[in-house]
Amino acid sequence: MKLTQPTRITMVGGGSWATALIKILSENNVAIKWWLRKETDAAHIKQFNHNPSYLSDVQINPKKVKVCTKIRDAVKDTDYIVLAVPAAFVADALTGLTPEHFAEKRIISAIKGMIPATNQLVTDWVSEQYNVSPSQIAVIAGPCHAEEVALEKQSYLTIASQDAACAEAVSDLLRCRFVQTTPGDDIYGVEYCAVMKNIVALASGITRGLGYGDNFQAVLVSNAMQEIRRFVDAIYPKHRDLSGSAYLGDLLVTAYSPFSRNRTFGTLIGRGYTIQSAQAEMNMIAEGYYAVKSIHAINQRFNVDMPITNAVYSILYERVAPSGAMNRLSAGLR
Amino acid sequence: MKLTQPTRITMVGGGSWATALIKILSENNVAIKWWLRKETDAAHIKQFNHNPSYLSDVQINPKKVKVCTKIRDAVKDTDYIVLAVPAAFVADALTGLTPEHFAEKRIISAIKGMIPATNQLVTDWVSEQYNVSPSQIAVIAGPCHAEEVALEKQSYLTIASQDAACAEAVSDLLRCRFVQTTPGDDIYGVEYCAVMKNIVALASGITRGLGYGDNFQAVLVSNAMQEIRRFVDAIYPKHRDLSGSAYLGDLLVTAYSPFSRNRTFGTLIGRGYTIQSAQAEMNMIAEGYYAVKSIHAINQRFNVDMPITNAVYSILYERVAPSGAMNRLSAGLR
Repeated sequence: MKLTQPTRITMVGGGSWATALIKILSENNVAIKWWLRKETDAAHIKQFNHNPSYLSDVQINPKKVKVCTKIRDAVKDTDYIVLAVPAAFVADALTGLTPEHFAEKRIISAIKGMIPATNQLVTDWVSEQYNVSPSQIAVIAGPCHAEEVALEKQSYLTIASQDAACAEAVSDLLRCRFVQTTPGDDIYGVEYCAVMKNIVALASGITRGLGYGDNFQAVLVSNAMQEIRRFVDAIYPKHRDLSGSAYLGDLLVTAYSPFSRNRTFGTLIGRGYTIQSAQAEMNMIAEGYYAVKSIHAINQRFNVDMPITNAVYSILYERVAPSGAMNRLSAGLR
Repeated sequence: MKLTQPTRITMVGGGSWATALIKILSENNVAIKWWLRKETDAAHIKQFNHNPSYLSDVQINPKKVKVCTKIRDAVKDTDYIVLAVPAAFVADALTGLTPEHFAEKRIISAIKGMIPATNQLVTDWVSEQYNVSPSQIAVIAGPCHAEEVALEKQSYLTIASQDAACAEAVSDLLRCRFVQTTPGDDIYGVEYCAVMKNIVALASGITRGLGYGDNFQAVLVSNAMQEIRRFVDAIYPKHRDLSGSAYLGDLLVTAYSPFSRNRTFGTLIGRGYTIQSAQAEMNMIAEGYYAVKSIHAINQRFNVDMPITNAVYSILYERVAPSGAMNRLSAGLR
């Protein structure tokens, strides 16, 4: 009997989502090279088969996962490169790589944020920097907290790519006992939605911190769906059902869940913390903090009506008082 | 200076939503006759200006609100009749009334349920029973827990009527310091959505009780929005934006809030309570219990694909085990 060769995957990133993806992928026939920045974390995983910094309960299977800290080694002899670092750090993580390192490989973005320096989607940036064709690129989307993956709670992912075969292949790689996957083609739609939902989670947290209740939150999220549709339709018109799991579902899990770091960051801001003290209080990056700056900048060209984004931007970047900004926002919702 | 005459309103119902509406309406220039079934509650309100059974913190203004327990007296010399009893009890509450009692009055349904005996929307039933024209009828919709109205948390209501003037007038009556209102015309859409969201809240509670997490819940609610759209489009085709507060917002506040009695009822069922013991445990009616039977019956004619409704129906009415039904449901979601 001939054994099927394992699929060769490089995971770039040592955070909770990277760790959760390692767990999911390890359910299938894979050989993973796991790149982490921190030497001490890599050494710990090698020795104890657990990530000391994130999702420490997750058992790493050493037969399937080899850790490494040199990015050039990590991307050698591989079929898939999965990017799972915060958007603000992706350029740094890939330092030293050239277009040749990306040739004839599939690049999967698991990042829900934008490159702050250029206000680009991660996939657009990768495509431009490393001359990667859209048919090589896919995005992992869907409502999926890493913490629940660690607990093997039933979860769902949508894999979007302009290339149907690529979307199918990545869907197959990520499907397992506790994860269902669906391929799709709306890569821009799910990527922008994933970015914007973090802004909504910030707004949701800020209003929660200010004392607004569940009635308001439901109206905020409904209005946010309309704001997301206006923006995505303007920037990339396409027939899409925004009530799908990769859009509405992703927004809900972020805006409503206590696991959401963006919501938590927002709640601290709403309670009166300064941005610096809120960031110090939290151990993780709130992607929405950068996302709102990028989306606000992009919208200077499109002029879409975005009251929620504008309110969050004014609070985080223009020192407008949260209570005043949210008071004005609430008057315009319906 | 000439004083404007107060608007004469009859409130039918003594529960938490009726009490919250009394509080909202009392912010404006109104003369309310408040009908309650329970003599003891009526007597208590007369003496102490608080409803002893629901939202007991709400202060009732005796200059604006007169309680009574005779429905014929309550609907005499009034401009608006607001129905705010559970759908299962509305026929009983209105016993003794004839079409004459409804003539030249506006009838406002604040009920989010269906008449169990006939599987009719409350407005259709009122229209048929009492020969009320659609132009006299409006519905109060929107994501609004009574408990948060009691706390004067910022809330939003949508008032739907086929008659624009009626929708506007009711919107004006309910607008106040802490409530914003929006008139609309999709009375069937908001009414069916309000009914179905209780079924989704049951499903949400059941899966929560079974141990499913936030990732699953987000996918469940996304799929529910699609199920609601399929059903409402089949039964009453119309251009409508289901991400509006009266649709999506109402679903969210019910499916996600700890105040939701349907979600709580579902959670008990998911944890293994029998229907009888879950009902005994709770002090309020879970409208979804009746709603799922009505919607399931109506759909025998339309044959819309409704996996969530079918799963809840099978658990509550066909003694299917919650774990098995939700396992099968989860396999079909995406």
